[in-house]
Amino acid sequence: MKRTIYLEKRPWSEALELFLDTFRDMYPLQGEEVLVEQALDRIVTSDVTARISSPHYDGSAMDGVAVRSEDTIGADLSTPKQLKVGTETHFVDTGSPLPQGFDAVIQIEDVHEIDDETIEIYSPVAPWHYVRRIGEDVKEGDLLLRQNSRIGPYDIATLLAGGETTVTVRSKPKFGVLPTGSELVEPGSALKPGDIIEFNSRMVKALITQWSGTCQRYAIVPDEFETVETSVKKILEDNDAAIIIAGSSAGRRDFTPQVVEELGDIIVHGVNVMPGKPVVLGRIENKPVIGLPGYPVSAAVIMDLFIKPLVCTMLGTPIIERRKIQASLTQKIYSKLGMEEFVRVTIKKDKEKVIATPLTRGAGVISSLAKADGILRIPDNMEGLEAGSEVEVELLKEIW
Amino acid sequence: MKRTIYLEKRPWSEALELFLDTFRDMYPLQGEEVLVEQALDRIVTSDVTARISSPHYDGSAMDGVAVRSEDTIGADLSTPKQLKVGTETHFVDTGSPLPQGFDAVIQIEDVHEIDDETIEIYSPVAPWHYVRRIGEDVKEGDLLLRQNSRIGPYDIATLLAGGETTVTVRSKPKFGVLPTGSELVEPGSALKPGDIIEFNSRMVKALITQWSGTCQRYAIVPDEFETVETSVKKILEDNDAAIIIAGSSAGRRDFTPQVVEELGDIIVHGVNVMPGKPVVLGRIENKPVIGLPGYPVSAAVIMDLFIKPLVCTMLGTPIIERRKIQASLTQKIYSKLGMEEFVRVTIKKDKEKVIATPLTRGAGVISSLAKADGILRIPDNMEGLEAGSEVEVELLKEIW
Repeated sequence: MKRTIYLEKRPWSEALELFLDTFRDMYPLQGEEVLVEQALDRIVTSDVTARISSPHYDGSAMDGVAVRSEDTIGADLSTPKQLKVGTETHFVDTGSPLPQGFDAVIQIEDVHEIDDETIEIYSPVAPWHYVRRIGEDVKEGDLLLRQNSRIGPYDIATLLAGGETTVTVRSKPKFGVLPTGSELVEPGSALKPGDIIEFNSRMVKALITQWSGTCQRYAIVPDEFETVETSVKKILEDNDAAIIIAGSSAGRRDFTPQVVEELGDIIVHGVNVMPGKPVVLGRIENKPVIGLPGYPVSAAVIMDLFIKPLVCTMLGTPIIERRKIQASLTQKIYSKLGMEEFVRVTIKKDKEKVIATPLTRGAGVISSLAKADGILRIPDNMEGLEAGSEVEVELLKEIW
Repeated sequence: MKRTIYLEKRPWSEALELFLDTFRDMYPLQGEEVLVEQALDRIVTSDVTARISSPHYDGSAMDGVAVRSEDTIGADLSTPKQLKVGTETHFVDTGSPLPQGFDAVIQIEDVHEIDDETIEIYSPVAPWHYVRRIGEDVKEGDLLLRQNSRIGPYDIATLLAGGETTVTVRSKPKFGVLPTGSELVEPGSALKPGDIIEFNSRMVKALITQWSGTCQRYAIVPDEFETVETSVKKILEDNDAAIIIAGSSAGRRDFTPQVVEELGDIIVHGVNVMPGKPVVLGRIENKPVIGLPGYPVSAAVIMDLFIKPLVCTMLGTPIIERRKIQASLTQKIYSKLGMEEFVRVTIKKDKEKVIATPLTRGAGVISSLAKADGILRIPDNMEGLEAGSEVEVELLKEIW
């Protein structure tokens, strides 16, 4: 059934909700079984409980002798107790299982060996003294990992301790990215005036990789409806979602909206976000298709606002958030009413004060995003911010 | 030259300094050339500057006509200026290079086409109006990345924009990890009493991976001097450093100190850290060799205190630090004077107050480290902390 919800410049949060809602039944993605030791940073699809206890036996926590604690009652320096080796006591090493019927260990330093068959002890011990008991670390049936949690190094150890050797984790969301634009050339090409080096798709791939998805890059296609259409079909055969990058200059012919309309539905076209406005969010064959603006900073903003939440939704995890800090703005910024603006800033510490300085706002200046320490949002109902305003900055880098 | 600096229970910070100083001349590691698009999260070995400007030509920022700005002076609605197409003006698309001698663009909406050869304009434009100039994003020679910085997605884009296709990054530090102990069995084995599942090496590998190194796991060897010695030699032939994990119970025979002494030098043996005390830090053939305690929490603490800084030093980066938060302790903790203790805690928010609750302190209870939200350090000169104390907690997880 074809359904076109064509929205002109929605607030991005509304657009995002509408977009994700469209795929609510599809996600999170199915799971796949992997070895625990290869599961670092993967997301478990359901609660994982321990198959076995760890330790799985009562063992000695010391080198010494195993005893029955009741046999030690009343022992002291003036009235030591003697125990027969092999029946009333057994020598044990650290980690050795406790012999059947024994419930405590006396460390070797506190044992006097009278002869090969007899030892003497000088104080009583309580049950389970120096015993590492069954399940001290993990008990059979214990919850080891909650559904949708991310597996860290200590989880790998705990899962293995609990007897798991494999674990079911979410499949990694598979994206395909298609750079379009007759002006685009591969990095390393000899450049003629008018050529643009195609780097957006490589940035897209790196971002998706950081968010725990995978991304395959497809070869550049020229601005031709049929070619774009054929490529998008191919990408969706091989992947969970497609990203089509428009030519890297504003005004270039962008066939994404037509292709999405032809093959599926447009859900959102345009959001009130700067840079990033001309985004296309659509659906083809029940898979998300995103038309990314060609200006690199616009592309980066849209990746963050829409693709990061999409990847997290596919994985079943909360949306990754950046750490926020308060800072004082060094200079006045004007902003367009009705547009939510994302301003790149550098952050410095000036004595105790944290100060944020805006960088260039050109959507084509990708180097400014590499230089930026953070992003400052100016809401759509504000015409700007005064110098000295206290603002909230989302950190792109962990600083000091 | 053999040099044995055998230290009994140094503060770990002194021990670390001594350890890293031993290898100061060896690190950071050499570089290797990789494709920029495959360089995510790698560390650049030296400053990288732009090979070319981006854009590399003056181009139109709009669909319209290219003009010489001086030709437009004086144009207004009552006295429009007419320009001849092909000589005084040229049609351009967004991204098109500006014809030689032209310095401004008028957007198509502001142009009146009189006939095929003539257009009319109604206002003057300044030089470089609607022109995306050479180097607007990156100028040839611009510093793109500082030495020892980590390459992120925006850096990949910026490097490609600046004409780089490859970049020299630090080789990943190569570790080999050897689990030793006759009681150890592989995950998935049928368990007899006394068997211990070997999971420490898998935790070690995952931690080193997170810190941007690589780690190869070697097969379990029994507690035999010659076998351990042979394995360590082999590991050091193939790797930059070796980690030997002692049997996973205290008191097991640990041949690491003898092997390191036989083949090289012990730098530190024992630190005043709990858990983690019996660590061995050594050098064989100018490569670091670390004897890790077998109790998993001890192993994890030593990994964090010594191996993380070692990996970062090999990479030439600052030591990765965890984020710290202030919290209020829910209960009294006793601690041994003369030992710096690392206590696992959970963190909760109780209204506006952040509270930290200690978990078990057993060095064998790895599940508690998986459950912990953070780590609280009790300095060696304190006998403990009172309930309600304000403490600093290093976060193991990003929470709220």
